[in-house]
Amino acid sequence: MNGLSKISVKELLQSQQPEASVCVRGWVRSIRRGKGVAFVTLNDGSCFASLQIVLVPELENYEVASKVGTGACLVVVGELVASPAAGQAWEVQARTIEIVGAADENYPLQKKRHSLEYLRSIAHLRPRSNTFGAVFRMRSKLAFAVHQFFQQRDFVYVQTPIITANDCEGAGEMFRVSTLDPIHPPLDDGQVDWKQDFFGERTGLTVSGQLQGELFATAFSDIYTFGPTFRAENSNTSRHAAEFWMIEPEIAFADLDDNCQLGEDFLRYLVTYALENCQEDLHFFNQRVEKGLIEKLESLAKAEFRTISYTEAVEQLQKKGQSFEFPVAWGHDLQSEHERYLTEKVFNGPVFVTNYPKQIKAFYMRMNDDQKTVAAMDLLVPRVGEIIGGSQREERFDVLQARMEAQGIAQGDMDWYLDIRRWGTCPHAGFGLGFERLLMYLTGMENIRDVIPFPRTPGHAQF
Amino acid sequence: MNGLSKISVKELLQSQQPEASVCVRGWVRSIRRGKGVAFVTLNDGSCFASLQIVLVPELENYEVASKVGTGACLVVVGELVASPAAGQAWEVQARTIEIVGAADENYPLQKKRHSLEYLRSIAHLRPRSNTFGAVFRMRSKLAFAVHQFFQQRDFVYVQTPIITANDCEGAGEMFRVSTLDPIHPPLDDGQVDWKQDFFGERTGLTVSGQLQGELFATAFSDIYTFGPTFRAENSNTSRHAAEFWMIEPEIAFADLDDNCQLGEDFLRYLVTYALENCQEDLHFFNQRVEKGLIEKLESLAKAEFRTISYTEAVEQLQKKGQSFEFPVAWGHDLQSEHERYLTEKVFNGPVFVTNYPKQIKAFYMRMNDDQKTVAAMDLLVPRVGEIIGGSQREERFDVLQARMEAQGIAQGDMDWYLDIRRWGTCPHAGFGLGFERLLMYLTGMENIRDVIPFPRTPGHAQF
Repeated sequence: MNGLSKISVKELLQSQQPEASVCVRGWVRSIRRGKGVAFVTLNDGSCFASLQIVLVPELENYEVASKVGTGACLVVVGELVASPAAGQAWEVQARTIEIVGAADENYPLQKKRHSLEYLRSIAHLRPRSNTFGAVFRMRSKLAFAVHQFFQQRDFVYVQTPIITANDCEGAGEMFRVSTLDPIHPPLDDGQVDWKQDFFGERTGLTVSGQLQGELFATAFSDIYTFGPTFRAENSNTSRHAAEFWMIEPEIAFADLDDNCQLGEDFLRYLVTYALENCQEDLHFFNQRVEKGLIEKLESLAKAEFRTISYTEAVEQLQKKGQSFEFPVAWGHDLQSEHERYLTEKVFNGPVFVTNYPKQIKAFYMRMNDDQKTVAAMDLLVPRVGEIIGGSQREERFDVLQARMEAQGIAQGDMDWYLDIRRWGTCPHAGFGLGFERLLMYLTGMENIRDVIPFPRTPGHAQF
Repeated sequence: MNGLSKISVKELLQSQQPEASVCVRGWVRSIRRGKGVAFVTLNDGSCFASLQIVLVPELENYEVASKVGTGACLVVVGELVASPAAGQAWEVQARTIEIVGAADENYPLQKKRHSLEYLRSIAHLRPRSNTFGAVFRMRSKLAFAVHQFFQQRDFVYVQTPIITANDCEGAGEMFRVSTLDPIHPPLDDGQVDWKQDFFGERTGLTVSGQLQGELFATAFSDIYTFGPTFRAENSNTSRHAAEFWMIEPEIAFADLDDNCQLGEDFLRYLVTYALENCQEDLHFFNQRVEKGLIEKLESLAKAEFRTISYTEAVEQLQKKGQSFEFPVAWGHDLQSEHERYLTEKVFNGPVFVTNYPKQIKAFYMRMNDDQKTVAAMDLLVPRVGEIIGGSQREERFDVLQARMEAQGIAQGDMDWYLDIRRWGTCPHAGFGLGFERLLMYLTGMENIRDVIPFPRTPGHAQF
């Protein structure tokens, strides 16, 4: 455009020395006019900080440029000099300013405090705000950290299918996927004739990649999935979305202890990665979103991860004389308040709860010798409760078959899942981590809608 | 289990010295019995090669172990010694063999040559074959390479939504996503009342993350998407699947030249990454799937990427006196045979074709000054044809609005897309690369079904 190469605000702010000519491009976050001078803060999303641009009347278009609106897009050529202002090392004294895209007073993201609810309604513009710039930069970096953790350990990444004909995954209600005529679908004996649908059978959106991940673990030993999953549940809470991303590692030749160790290593890695690679954004969250966030993360990064069995946990909860909204009884699932009490009050740190009653867990979890519990584990952390859930899988053909029968799962639909126990079966284990739940933990953001670029919830599929 | 830590076949084969005691776990690929000795090749998916295990009659369970079936799962403890056999540096002389999971003669993946069609029917077991072990290890490594390329350049990764209410993306037929009663959906004036559906409007599966990616590019400057996309097209070709993964970078302050440069850098990076990090698997593909594959890739890695305008390309195709099945005429899309001719015969290397007639391209591509062509580009490579397609986007509000109107796209549905031109607009550009098409190019596999873990095509949603 002008012979000067594109350089980001992040790179400029890391400069070691002044520069006679730089060209920087970005969007106006604010403008402040003084006497015979104006200051524009310009942000290009490359980092949290904006770059101060100094405008003087000698500029050819000073009158126009010094009245540019918040949100306008500028290309600035000028001199990078040490800034006399506090809190910034460098600023640019503009020689030319090109207003590439103007913005008037109707721009919905004027410089003032906006509620998170309002920002959700302009999800196409909210990445230009401080908060959501930080959220989505961290989302990007943590996604990479997930891949790096597993790839460094030679895990194979498996992109499991989104459209599935399995209806027995049991993790939740499914969305239907179809191309049949929505008003007059072909019928067979009063029922929809799914044989005529695109895939020749009834299909929906996956609730988990685990079952397919297990298949790959029995070929590559160590695998992980990282992809979107879905729940057609009409729940309007701050922790549920209809579409979210899950990470599900699966390891062969592994038992529940190995699984807990992997979960511990993984979470510690992600927290440490965030502390080391997202300092500027974390600093913002620590100040403005969750006081003490960084301390919380630093504490988790070096915490001892404890383990307690479900049975012992129930005893602990019962004997403390603590009163809970929901009663504690062996055989019932732990409620959020119980989990929080265990990790915050009893252990004051991360804790794995293991070996849950079989009746509250899925059919594929490995039966323990007591015939009452299965080799499941949940990892609880302070302020959040459950962040990871997993199990050793039932690798014994007969036992698995019996459990499927007991739960009314038609074996014919799952022959492929049984096949890996039929031939060359091996002990294996795995867990799931909801990526958004991790992000909420790392940023302090309290609503899942605020860590997803374009959240899908009941009544909402905008953008 | 036995005090010996888990070590992979890959690690053992890279050993620098013998080891008195190792424990290795995997699946039997083949077994060969000699006089007073048996040889098992054991594979754990960590690399292409298997490890030879030597069984001698002194083994406690020699009789059983030496008759173990293909596909059985073993835990072997023994001594790692230099192998006298050709083609392998190391072997393990077994001290104990535990048959963790037996496999009988009904195991569907017996040691013999299977057709790719047959292997597709056992997609849950085919990762245990040489070919699909190599394919899916490469898929995993290249997925990581995609992330690494962009993250090293400070691009922000955006996970764009899978469920969408946009029906004007124009890239293809969409699957419908619904939770309404499939037999008796609520009707309003004879039409389905989508207001009563889960999201309060008609929704489907995304065909592209580009439009949402553009929104993020105008906040973070440089972004990329990498996620599943869908086409409900009833096409049964070797190059089409209903579900596949796309990579879509979008860069602000960029024109068509910048876009081509990014495409060139990206493809060169991926090919080089494969050559450097997937040698063993590439060697197999080179020998057994596409002769000359490695040479082809090495040639692309150092090739000069050429550029030709669509108009010039049409002239080239018309003047050569070459006969094509489909006639060549300005204003019509180039067919595969034309693309192959350009990249293979005219240029014998990668070539960008740029500035296509507006009537054959999407509404969002930037109108050139001639008012006849738009700033689009396709990258063609030998043996494949188009591998990347992209454009500079129309950033001028009025021009974009006029094009949408001309194409009958309701502005109301796309106000958010227009908004980023309404306030602070900037020139930007981007492209899409189909991940499976890349993998087909890198492996030589000729059917898209053979580079997807569990392919979805008309009539097929198994596993």
